[in-house]
Amino acid sequence: MEKQFDLITVGRACIDLNAVEYNRPMEDTMTFAKYVGGSPVNIAIGTSKLGMKVGFIGKVSNDQHGRFIKKYMADVGINTDHTIFDQEGHTSGMVFTEIKSPQECSILMYRENVADLYLRPEEIQEDYIKKTKKILISGTALAGSPSREAVFQVVKYARKHNVEILFELDYRYPTWKSDAETSIYYSLMAEMADVVIGTRDEFDKLENKQGENNETVAYLFQYRPKLIVIKHGVKGSYAYTKDGQIIDGKVYKSNVLKTFGAGDSYASAFLYALSHGKSIEVALKFGAAAAAIVVSKHSSSEAMPTVAAIEALIKEQDK
Amino acid sequence: MEKQFDLITVGRACIDLNAVEYNRPMEDTMTFAKYVGGSPVNIAIGTSKLGMKVGFIGKVSNDQHGRFIKKYMADVGINTDHTIFDQEGHTSGMVFTEIKSPQECSILMYRENVADLYLRPEEIQEDYIKKTKKILISGTALAGSPSREAVFQVVKYARKHNVEILFELDYRYPTWKSDAETSIYYSLMAEMADVVIGTRDEFDKLENKQGENNETVAYLFQYRPKLIVIKHGVKGSYAYTKDGQIIDGKVYKSNVLKTFGAGDSYASAFLYALSHGKSIEVALKFGAAAAAIVVSKHSSSEAMPTVAAIEALIKEQDK
Amino acid sequence: MEKQFDLITVGRACIDLNAVEYNRPMEDTMTFAKYVGGSPVNIAIGTSKLGMKVGFIGKVSNDQHGRFIKKYMADVGINTDHTIFDQEGHTSGMVFTEIKSPQECSILMYRENVADLYLRPEEIQEDYIKKTKKILISGTALAGSPSREAVFQVVKYARKHNVEILFELDYRYPTWKSDAETSIYYSLMAEMADVVIGTRDEFDKLENKQGENNETVAYLFQYRPKLIVIKHGVKGSYAYTKDGQIIDGKVYKSNVLKTFGAGDSYASAFLYALSHGKSIEVALKFGAAAAAIVVSKHSSSEAMPTVAAIEALIKEQDK
Amino acid sequence: MEKQFDLITVGRACIDLNAVEYNRPMEDTMTFAKYVGGSPVNIAIGTSKLGMKVGFIGKVSNDQHGRFIKKYMADVGINTDHTIFDQEGHTSGMVFTEIKSPQECSILMYRENVADLYLRPEEIQEDYIKKTKKILISGTALAGSPSREAVFQVVKYARKHNVEILFELDYRYPTWKSDAETSIYYSLMAEMADVVIGTRDEFDKLENKQGENNETVAYLFQYRPKLIVIKHGVKGSYAYTKDGQIIDGKVYKSNVLKTFGAGDSYASAFLYALSHGKSIEVALKFGAAAAAIVVSKHSSSEAMPTVAAIEALIKEQDK
Repeated sequence: MEKQFDLITVGRACIDLNAVEYNRPMEDTMTFAKYVGGSPVNIAIGTSKLGMKVGFIGKVSNDQHGRFIKKYMADVGINTDHTIFDQEGHTSGMVFTEIKSPQECSILMYRENVADLYLRPEEIQEDYIKKTKKILISGTALAGSPSREAVFQVVKYARKHNVEILFELDYRYPTWKSDAETSIYYSLMAEMADVVIGTRDEFDKLENKQGENNETVAYLFQYRPKLIVIKHGVKGSYAYTKDGQIIDGKVYKSNVLKTFGAGDSYASAFLYALSHGKSIEVALKFGAAAAAIVVSKHSSSEAMPTVAAIEALIKEQDK
Repeated sequence: MEKQFDLITVGRACIDLNAVEYNRPMEDTMTFAKYVGGSPVNIAIGTSKLGMKVGFIGKVSNDQHGRFIKKYMADVGINTDHTIFDQEGHTSGMVFTEIKSPQECSILMYRENVADLYLRPEEIQEDYIKKTKKILISGTALAGSPSREAVFQVVKYARKHNVEILFELDYRYPTWKSDAETSIYYSLMAEMADVVIGTRDEFDKLENKQGENNETVAYLFQYRPKLIVIKHGVKGSYAYTKDGQIIDGKVYKSNVLKTFGAGDSYASAFLYALSHGKSIEVALKFGAAAAAIVVSKHSSSEAMPTVAAIEALIKEQDK
Repeated sequence: MEKQFDLITVGRACIDLNAVEYNRPMEDTMTFAKYVGGSPVNIAIGTSKLGMKVGFIGKVSNDQHGRFIKKYMADVGINTDHTIFDQEGHTSGMVFTEIKSPQECSILMYRENVADLYLRPEEIQEDYIKKTKKILISGTALAGSPSREAVFQVVKYARKHNVEILFELDYRYPTWKSDAETSIYYSLMAEMADVVIGTRDEFDKLENKQGENNETVAYLFQYRPKLIVIKHGVKGSYAYTKDGQIIDGKVYKSNVLKTFGAGDSYASAFLYALSHGKSIEVALKFGAAAAAIVVSKHSSSEAMPTVAAIEALIKEQDK
Repeated sequence: MEKQFDLITVGRACIDLNAVEYNRPMEDTMTFAKYVGGSPVNIAIGTSKLGMKVGFIGKVSNDQHGRFIKKYMADVGINTDHTIFDQEGHTSGMVFTEIKSPQECSILMYRENVADLYLRPEEIQEDYIKKTKKILISGTALAGSPSREAVFQVVKYARKHNVEILFELDYRYPTWKSDAETSIYYSLMAEMADVVIGTRDEFDKLENKQGENNETVAYLFQYRPKLIVIKHGVKGSYAYTKDGQIIDGKVYKSNVLKTFGAGDSYASAFLYALSHGKSIEVALKFGAAAAAIVVSKHSSSEAMPTVAAIEALIKEQDK
């Protein structure tokens, strides 16, 4: 039976307020441009722009910001039937970006009682989960209850219906209580996923120690994962398969404006390539190329590139 | 003995994010301009611009937003020795303005675990309070603990040192738990104040019923207040004195852009006039003129007018 | 018009679990006897036993313990029409007593999310307040919200209907957040009361310093109080009146079993005497005699003496 | 290498206050006898009395009740090196028993901010876990954070060191937020355990539906469990093994006083028998016999029988 969706992403949806005037501290930025943000939203947007059939499960504030987020996603073709409006007065998270220089980017996250962490397990619909080929869990959704339980409910349905489970670690500091807590839920989740993607720093959070790739993948391959991607920033990335392959992914040159959004565009293009039957090696190139494009643009969500742009960059730089 | 300050204001400090593109719903506003906000901050700025010696007691977030707020106030001449940085990770409140039309303005307040409500009674310095002639309590500071207790601590010291206590009701919905709670603390506070200023709607919150001016002032004049100002929006305002005077304040014409900030500029100019020995009648004109000027401008804090501008408008329109 | 009640008490109702085997640490006590407890409940029971018409305003847990408390009070003649069952799953506070020796008594209070602190201002009925001559506020009811606001609502109605307000400080450590908080609400409440009763230690909490009686009463007589009773344990007590009288109250000898309950029996008999037109001097004797009787008995609530027993002890020891 | 412990139990420790006068509603019970309680404590006591080497991991209140609990356990030979005193003011849970008749027993649990739910993952010592042959997780420890994370930390260390993991469901209503939450953590935990023991009602909580044994075990045998025991009260119990055996366990006659404590004595004797190389069939008899003895006695913890008493009852009733 044909599935309705290629991918459903699950988790955080927020408002990005990006410094309009940059190369200065945020205290001196007087104007901010509003974008939709949050890793699983960005990946939904990125994969949707690449032509995939995508849905989003999450909870947004029942106000102008939440309505903007939901409408924006619907406008780029994402199915928002399970993008729920919060009914208890919770807010949309805010991410203010500070771009002091291309090398010094930071974000200021406001995540007090944000709607996305109030998604409840009772709100997850088995019927919706079974309509998709893949589901992507974004790690921040595990940072608090009841969203954490909602994620485990998604996983339960996904396993029941043989939906492939992708886990994007997406570690965001301000909502976790302790490193011990992060490690516990990241490892519980990773052990149940088919594919795990994250930076080396994020895998360190998963293991609650400064780890090492070979040890990390040896641990996880005892459980369900069959593909693990570990990103090392400007040094490239590595993909590991359960049957022992190690594929070394390079990076592409870019005229860097800021570093935000690289991970989400990477994940989007990587998933697109895998879903279209490309090899892991090519998928890593797609990820790296998409990241190179996004870091040269002002936003994270709007800058998600097209397949043509990605292929052009690969062709250009692989020469 | 000469006092160091004419006025110290106490309470909420926040970030205003004002729609740059307006006459549309906020969902369609894509750029926001950042200003310092919060009623007692605006009144501190307003009175400081009018030449008064002013201090501010409050707590701001220990991040880029909090630093911006404190620096902005210091730059306009406000004493910020008791503007404290929060050390527990609380945030700055956000006020997003929506200007659909001059008649349809609304605000979206994000006030989850905001730093201003975490000012503690132990942080109030008796020495600072005794250096001022007047203290202005802004009602929102009573909306939660421990800020509520900090306000009562301020009042205790102010009474001890014969500092005049002004109470600006400044009712802001999202932080109060119930109307009963608002009414209880508004009336406790009003009974201990020398001057009470608010809109008719705010006095209704104080009384927890749709009240009527004569009854309101009869109730409050049993206690400490000697001057009560009740504002009726475009219909003007009334000042009542304990010895039975009723002064009818008019409004001035304005090319209205938005309605935000009218109350704070009104209070600033009214207090300035009283502090300079003008009659209540003239003080009401000052308030009304300042409000007329601010509603024609984009911001609340930056638009606070000068004495010359206020006097010019009065002269012009009183002809 | 004849009032239905002589006294309504307001505040904490709990379960006392008194060590059956005593003169040992609680770890070695294996059996506990159950009694109704809480200062305002004990005073309601005490005054009711002395023949006064008494009501109780408070909230009890909706379980076996709460039902026991309400039924016990009703059985001794207290009006419990406004003794409300909690509907949100809160519990009854527990007080375990430890009697190591008559000189070494301590209590272990369990007061996590107790029902009595969840009385809401909206639940206070103006009609009920206006039916009583006196109302007694017990200080612990000010320790948390919304009970704190419910107390202020009671006071508002009492002032409106000229009901005499008695404030029994009843300081109980575990529910207050800080000494500054206690001092703020104790002084706000005391300034609005007609009669204030407490130990010297409790007045120190009110003033947030080690105070001295003359200074304490000078401060409070600036406001509404007309009678202040300060108790000094085994050294006796002093009553101060606004017109300058100081009455020195003695203590009576007793075969002390434990020290719990002395304050509540003191307050009960003192109020009884005042309500029956006796002089302050005689009322102090009544209080001291009732305390002497209760400390020789095992419980606080059941041991409340009769008028005859009090008068007998006074006659005996005043010889 | 010889392990120091046969069993370490993990979870809730509390105070049981058992009605001294029974066959009446609790409102009419005026005396309570104090015992140590909590399922994993009772199982530690039960197995220790049966001669096993036992430790207990948990957190108790830093007061007379917590000290009583820890001392009582140490006195019956349990290792309490990792029975930690809470340092944040949390209390000991209270369980009041009501015995209206042998058929109508109920409990009233007070579990607001109880110390046992504040055990933190950072407090779990890998060295301690690796010293035991078996670890028993009691389900209530999963009901809240950070205790829930502490349990997952225990499991992580146990899996690393090949310690057998037993999961006793022990469902206790008042601490869970929703049935969905219970089901999620019960199933996550059960999938990682070697042995799962519970009543049919508790397995229904695990599955969040009225389930059926064959389906339950089919689900769980997909994961790690190799032995599942489902108890049906007076109708007996069933043990299921991964290799397809079903063993039908009978019940023994008893002069029932109350039904409390049956499950913990059952688990204790069952584990003892398995640990001593007896067949599952005999272990089920041990469990049933121990339960029959405990329900005829007043307490849960003190009544745990000896091996001789268990064997005598089996011999007597199996004739």
